[in-house]
Amino acid sequence: MSLIVHKYGGTSMGSTERIKNVARRVAKWHKAGKQMVVVPSAMSGETNRLIGLAREIQAEPDPRELDMLCCTGEQASVALLSMALKALGVDAVSYCGWQVPVRTDASHNKARIESIDDTHVRKALDSGKVVIITGFQGINANGDLTTLGRGGSDTSAVAIAAAMNAAECLIYTDVDGIYTTDPRVVPEARRMRVVSFEEMLEMASMGSKVLQIRSVEFAGKYRVPTRVLSSLTDPDMPLGQEAKSGTLITFEEDEHMEQAVVSGIAFNRDEAKVMVRGVPDKPGIAYQILGDVAAANIDVDMIIQNQGVDGTTDFTFTVHRNEYNKTMELLSNQVKGAVQAREVAGDTNVCKISIVGIGMRSHVGIASLMFKTLSEEGINIQMISTSEIKVSVLIDDKYMELAVRSLHRAFELEKEQH
Amino acid sequence: MSLIVHKYGGTSMGSTERIKNVARRVAKWHKAGKQMVVVPSAMSGETNRLIGLAREIQAEPDPRELDMLCCTGEQASVALLSMALKALGVDAVSYCGWQVPVRTDASHNKARIESIDDTHVRKALDSGKVVIITGFQGINANGDLTTLGRGGSDTSAVAIAAAMNAAECLIYTDVDGIYTTDPRVVPEARRMRVVSFEEMLEMASMGSKVLQIRSVEFAGKYRVPTRVLSSLTDPDMPLGQEAKSGTLITFEEDEHMEQAVVSGIAFNRDEAKVMVRGVPDKPGIAYQILGDVAAANIDVDMIIQNQGVDGTTDFTFTVHRNEYNKTMELLSNQVKGAVQAREVAGDTNVCKISIVGIGMRSHVGIASLMFKTLSEEGINIQMISTSEIKVSVLIDDKYMELAVRSLHRAFELEKEQH
Repeated sequence: MSLIVHKYGGTSMGSTERIKNVARRVAKWHKAGKQMVVVPSAMSGETNRLIGLAREIQAEPDPRELDMLCCTGEQASVALLSMALKALGVDAVSYCGWQVPVRTDASHNKARIESIDDTHVRKALDSGKVVIITGFQGINANGDLTTLGRGGSDTSAVAIAAAMNAAECLIYTDVDGIYTTDPRVVPEARRMRVVSFEEMLEMASMGSKVLQIRSVEFAGKYRVPTRVLSSLTDPDMPLGQEAKSGTLITFEEDEHMEQAVVSGIAFNRDEAKVMVRGVPDKPGIAYQILGDVAAANIDVDMIIQNQGVDGTTDFTFTVHRNEYNKTMELLSNQVKGAVQAREVAGDTNVCKISIVGIGMRSHVGIASLMFKTLSEEGINIQMISTSEIKVSVLIDDKYMELAVRSLHRAFELEKEQH
Repeated sequence: MSLIVHKYGGTSMGSTERIKNVARRVAKWHKAGKQMVVVPSAMSGETNRLIGLAREIQAEPDPRELDMLCCTGEQASVALLSMALKALGVDAVSYCGWQVPVRTDASHNKARIESIDDTHVRKALDSGKVVIITGFQGINANGDLTTLGRGGSDTSAVAIAAAMNAAECLIYTDVDGIYTTDPRVVPEARRMRVVSFEEMLEMASMGSKVLQIRSVEFAGKYRVPTRVLSSLTDPDMPLGQEAKSGTLITFEEDEHMEQAVVSGIAFNRDEAKVMVRGVPDKPGIAYQILGDVAAANIDVDMIIQNQGVDGTTDFTFTVHRNEYNKTMELLSNQVKGAVQAREVAGDTNVCKISIVGIGMRSHVGIASLMFKTLSEEGINIQMISTSEIKVSVLIDDKYMELAVRSLHRAFELEKEQH
């Protein structure tokens, strides 16, 4: 009997009525002869409510105690979903992560799963039960509760699917799949039937906020077929139809893969650009600048250093917009003098646009079509960075919609590709 | 260093402000050099909210899943209290019952504690931490979460105090101690400084709803000095004063014991009287009547069977008022015919009044003073039942206040006794 893992987000679990709908959907799969493991998130708003309580008590809540607190959200969810299944006459049992156990490393609030023992779960499945497991959480070697960070239930679901060799992991969410770009920006954006895990990784990290990035890494590492699909459809829709809906994240470049060179366009308005100009062009300067930034716990995304002229060079990088002020202060007060820079400057009115596609690997001219398209629209490119399957540019953010629409058209993403 | 256990009820934990007050109080004891274990309830209203969600999903929530759900209430409390202590600079650590572990039998929703392993807790205490443990819950041999039933946090606190040989278990609540009777009925009611555990047991089971009855049994069995005191006082009041406030439940009839023959008056308006009249006066009739009642899960309190006349007898008992209709139906439709009774009748306008006192054991005439007092007020006694340290009567409930006030005066309970 094949094993299927379902994951439901907080919105899908947002009320007792919605929990009953989730139960109807799970019951349908169970009755079709599948062994079912279900990983629900906390009811929508619950984790924020708990964090709010914690902050009223301690401005920077103690990480261990915050995990102890936040774990209650998913625990309530699994119990309620188990009851909802029983109310439908389907036998079910709920487990907390520590009961499975899902073992993690020691780091609170952003723990990583180390191992999953499926003995109990397997036994319950073999006795015909639906097994419901708390997402987002585990237990460390010290016996303390840990959480995987926001959105961690995706990772839990994929990790459980990997550990148990599930046939497929279905992530039910409030969108009906992964699109070529954000449909709110480009109305012609098209849902992809299939996307490669590498592409998904690039899309997710760019702000296509459908899946937690670590869940995609996990899916890739353990080759778990993972499908993103809607939890808003009729729970009683035919299973065959539901099983093919959404977007499948796959790991094999076979006949099922779309043959497009570019699969999607991601964009991110959360970045800010920072420039350290006229620094001596000598070894160690990048480390000297970024070392201080990293020490201040500021994440850096794009980094560019131009070839120096006259013995000096310009060093440019991007940070999250929320950390722009902190970064500028650090650079002005501390770094500028240390590296003898001429000037520190920055800009928050920027936007990163990326074209992503596994087909790029074997196609030339993708980047140049991107640059040509932007140039024809009169959009200046401020920074460029590339990976094997992605080209990202930083532009003035007032051109964001124009750039995404032009690129979507230029790469013909509105057309179904085979 | 002596170990003290504090227990705080849901009202005391009812908001983040109140949790901060609890932390201030605990910090005061900790700074005075006590090893501190704290057992908080769920925030007030939380357990009811969770049960409400469960019932929206399943009319009769699955007992195991209900425990899984309800355990989250206390888990959130311990985490928040631990944060509040850390915010005051006091090192603290929270544990769920299963982490201690507090082992219980298998019965969900009303589990009984079987053992408590204090290794982890002792270690944390010895490293100078305040240890905060979820009340109300434990883990069974199967690894499932269990709960001890409503009010179970009292029992958890006393059980932990017993297992760890604590110097005293302090139950902080929204009243300032145990009174000779309900002050809302008798304004002269006096707070007892000390009460014996046996008296407390009789008072608690009569509806003096200050402590869960099982916690008192536990305190008695393991001889845990237990104090009931107010959580509404200034958290910064001098420790010496606080340590002597409230009412101490004690186990030694020594010089500390009050010498009164009657310590308090309890009353209960939740009972209803049921009569099965004119049944054949032969062996087995009581079993035949009560067997059916017990089989229907109806709890019976007072039971009286009079000496028979003319070969028949009357059988009278009391049940909880909520179960009166169910009982009357059962008796009329099933029992009446089976035992060939002449008549089944009942009355819900009754009230049970009890005088309780460990001194009764060695004093005669207590019951007769009670009957005389009631008779002088023209109050008819419908039923009488006695134990070693208690005399209970059932009367028309319109006389409840009059009876309690007269008895309180007759036994001079308003006077401090030595």
